[in-house]
Amino acid sequence: MPDLSGYRGPSAKLLTEAGASIGDVLEIQMGTESIKGTLVPRYEHNDDKHIVIKLKSGYNVGISVDKVSKVVRVAKGEAPKFIAPKQAAGKGLPEVAILGTGGTIASRVDYRTGAVHPATTAEELYSLFPELSEVASIKPEIVVSVYSENLEPNHWEAIAKRVSEVVAKGVSGVILTMGTDTMGYTAAALSFALRGIPVPLFVVGSQRSSDRPSSDAFLNLIGAATMAVQANFSGVFVAMHADSSDETLAVHLGTRVRKNHTSARDAFESMGIEPVAFWSRKGTEMVAHEPPTPRGKTGSFAAKPKFDPRVALVKFFPSMSKEYLSAILGSGLHGVVFEGTGLGHINSKNIEVVRKFVAGGGVACMTSQCLWGRVDMNVYDTGRDLLKAGVVPLEDMLPETALAKLMWALANFKSPEGTMVAMQDNLAGEITNRTIQRR
Amino acid sequence: MPDLSGYRGPSAKLLTEAGASIGDVLEIQMGTESIKGTLVPRYEHNDDKHIVIKLKSGYNVGISVDKVSKVVRVAKGEAPKFIAPKQAAGKGLPEVAILGTGGTIASRVDYRTGAVHPATTAEELYSLFPELSEVASIKPEIVVSVYSENLEPNHWEAIAKRVSEVVAKGVSGVILTMGTDTMGYTAAALSFALRGIPVPLFVVGSQRSSDRPSSDAFLNLIGAATMAVQANFSGVFVAMHADSSDETLAVHLGTRVRKNHTSARDAFESMGIEPVAFWSRKGTEMVAHEPPTPRGKTGSFAAKPKFDPRVALVKFFPSMSKEYLSAILGSGLHGVVFEGTGLGHINSKNIEVVRKFVAGGGVACMTSQCLWGRVDMNVYDTGRDLLKAGVVPLEDMLPETALAKLMWALANFKSPEGTMVAMQDNLAGEITNRTIQRR
Repeated sequence: MPDLSGYRGPSAKLLTEAGASIGDVLEIQMGTESIKGTLVPRYEHNDDKHIVIKLKSGYNVGISVDKVSKVVRVAKGEAPKFIAPKQAAGKGLPEVAILGTGGTIASRVDYRTGAVHPATTAEELYSLFPELSEVASIKPEIVVSVYSENLEPNHWEAIAKRVSEVVAKGVSGVILTMGTDTMGYTAAALSFALRGIPVPLFVVGSQRSSDRPSSDAFLNLIGAATMAVQANFSGVFVAMHADSSDETLAVHLGTRVRKNHTSARDAFESMGIEPVAFWSRKGTEMVAHEPPTPRGKTGSFAAKPKFDPRVALVKFFPSMSKEYLSAILGSGLHGVVFEGTGLGHINSKNIEVVRKFVAGGGVACMTSQCLWGRVDMNVYDTGRDLLKAGVVPLEDMLPETALAKLMWALANFKSPEGTMVAMQDNLAGEITNRTIQRR
Repeated sequence: MPDLSGYRGPSAKLLTEAGASIGDVLEIQMGTESIKGTLVPRYEHNDDKHIVIKLKSGYNVGISVDKVSKVVRVAKGEAPKFIAPKQAAGKGLPEVAILGTGGTIASRVDYRTGAVHPATTAEELYSLFPELSEVASIKPEIVVSVYSENLEPNHWEAIAKRVSEVVAKGVSGVILTMGTDTMGYTAAALSFALRGIPVPLFVVGSQRSSDRPSSDAFLNLIGAATMAVQANFSGVFVAMHADSSDETLAVHLGTRVRKNHTSARDAFESMGIEPVAFWSRKGTEMVAHEPPTPRGKTGSFAAKPKFDPRVALVKFFPSMSKEYLSAILGSGLHGVVFEGTGLGHINSKNIEVVRKFVAGGGVACMTSQCLWGRVDMNVYDTGRDLLKAGVVPLEDMLPETALAKLMWALANFKSPEGTMVAMQDNLAGEITNRTIQRR
C-alpha cells in the first residue's frame, strides 16, 4: 500500500494517480518544464497544495499542484528508515561537551506522525550519528529547553555559566546546538560572556526542517565535533553549511555572523570579513587574515556571564514619530542600539528625544541598517548632531552583535561612561580592521 | 604654494614633508606595504588623522596617519577644477522631468570651503553634466528640500502628486534625485502610489560624498536620463552603480531594492531577483525573467498618493519584553510590520500583545530580518500561533517595502480587512514568483 504521509486533498490525488509512494523518484511535469526528485513526506499541518521532492543536490522543493500537469513515477524507492544500532562511546578519545537548547539538531523524526524525538544521551547521539563515536567522547546534556525565538538574555547567562563549568573540567571543546532563529545573537552574546575561553566553542544547528533525515544537522555536528577535538584555536564560532552542497562547513566568528536567508542551507554568512575557516572531511582550511587566538590554559579563564536585558534594538524607519521613540525610550530601557540609515542617521526631529535619554543616564549607540560597511557620523549634519547628543558610533559592528554587547557591557561596566568606552573597544573581533577605511 | 585644503595637524605635517599638493600622485608607505593614488581634499570638519587618496579604480581610501611610515610624491597633478561652459538646452529632444528632493546629486562643491551649491536650473545642470543636453530636454525642479533621512510619508505624497502632474503634461520619463539613506523606502512607496505610471521613473542618487567631482552622480544621472527617453518600459525603479567601476548602472525594481552598504558605490542591490536591466553607454540590457510593463497611455493614469504614517517597522530582538511591545503598539499605531526571526517569529510571550492589537483593529504583518528568503509561518508552533493571532504573513516581501505598502494600503483600503487582503496581493512586484518554493 502506497505511503503518502502528510499528503491529502489535491496533492494526494495527483500522487495516487501516479501510483507514487514516499521515497519514489518522481518526474513532476509543469507544462513544458519538468523536475525530478525523490518524494518526501510532509507534516500533517502542511497544506494540501504542494508536492515536495528532494532534488539530487539535497534541496527539497515544494511544487504548487496548480502548476503540475502530470506526475510520473520514474523509479521505486525506499522510505528512509532510522536504524539505531547500539554504538559504543568513543572511549579514550578527547571529551567534547554538547550542550542542547531545544533546537532541531540531534532529533529523530517519526515519519508517520511527524513527531520529533530529541536525542539526549550519548548513546542516542552515537546511534543517530555513528561517525561521532570515532571522533570524540561526547558528553551531551540539555542546558535550557526553549525554541530559538524564545531564547533570552537569562538563557545566555545559563549557557555561559554551564560552558565555563565544562571547560573547567577539561573538555577539548564545546558544541552548542540550537535553533537557527537567534543563533547570530547568541553567538555574539557568548563571544563577550566567554571572552578568553581557552577552547573552541561551536554553535551549530540545522536549517532543514526535521522531516529530512539527511539534513544538514549531521555535517554540522560531525564537523564541529572534529574541530572541537583537533582545531588549534579557541573562541566562539558558528559552524554551518558553507554552500548548498553537503560537504563543507564555514566557521564564522561569533561576532561577525548573520542569518541571511530564512531557509537556505547556507543561510549564515560572515559579514564584512571572510569566515575564519572552512571544514570538510579533507580537513580544516584556515582563511582568516588574522588567525584566531590559539588554545589557552583552562585555569586562567573566568566567564562574565551577566547581561542587562533592558536594552532594545531599534531600526529607524521614515514614519518614526517623536511619540513613538519617546514611548520606546520611556519603557524602562537602560540602553538602545539604533539601526540608522546609511552612515548612521535617524530623522532630525528625534535627536532631542535621544539627547534626553542620554542625559538621563541611558546609553545610545549607532549601527547601520545597511548591515555592510561602516557608520561615519562626521560626514553630514544629522550625524554630527547625533554625536553631540551623546550617541556612540559603533563603526562596522553588526546591529545584532551591538545589542548583545550593550546588554553585556551594561551588566559588567556599571557606569554609562564605562559602558560607552567598552562599546567602542574591539573586544571580540566585533569591529574589523580600521587602518584602511573604505569610504 | 602647495594646496592642502582640509588637511591640518599630523596629516598636513606628513604631506608638507613630502612636498605634496592636492591632485599630486602619492605613494603612501605603511611598513612593507604601500598604496598609490591621487591626493584629494578633505572637508574642514574631517579629522586630522587621515590622508585620503583616490585610487585608479575611482575609490577614495582614507589612511590613518598612525600607520604611515612615509609619503612619497610620485607625480605632480592638477587640482580638479569645475569648468562651467554655457550649454544650450536640448532643444527638440524628448522632455524628461528631474525632480529634486535635496540629496547630493547635481551639486557642485566649492573645494576651498567644502560648501555645496545645488544646481537647480536646466542651465546649471547642463553645465555640470554637458552630456545631458545631447540626450534630453530636461525640466528640473525642487519638489521638497530635506535630507534623505528626514523624508516622511507626507513628502512621498507631495512627490507622487507632482510626478502625476508632470506625467500628465507628457514627459518621456521622470528622474527623482535624492540622498541614498531612504531611497529604498521611497522607491517602494512610489511603486504603490504611482502604480500604473505610463512612463519610467528612475530614482537616482550619489553614494560618493560631494567632495569628489568624478562621483557616481554623473553616470547615474546620464544613464537615467537616457533610459527615461529610450526605455520601452514603465514603472518605478532605482538606477545606481552596478559595481565598483564607473561604467554600468543596475536598474532595480522599486519594491525589491535595498541599500546594502553604508558607503560603497554599488550599495544598492536587488533582493531575491535579478535587476530589471543594466545600462551602460553601449545600451540597455534587459535581464528580467518577467519583463516590466511596457510604456502606457498617459490619459488613463491616476496616482493614489495617500499614506497613513501611523505604521511602524519593528525588528524583533531577544530581549523584547511585553512592556516594550505594548508601549510601541499603544503609541497610536494603525499598523505594524514585524521583522521576525527566521521563517517569521517573535517570542511566544509577546503573541498575546499582538493578538490584542489586531483585535482592536490594528493590522500586523510579518517579514523576516533574514532579508533573503520567504517567511513560512506554518512550520513551527510559534508561527502558527502568530497566524491565529491575526498576523498577516508577507512571503518574501522586503521589510522596508512592507512598511511603505502598509502605510499606503491603510490610506487606500480603509478597513483592516481590505488592507490585509491587499497586503497579500502582489501589486507591484513586491512578492516574487511562488510557483516553486525553495524551502
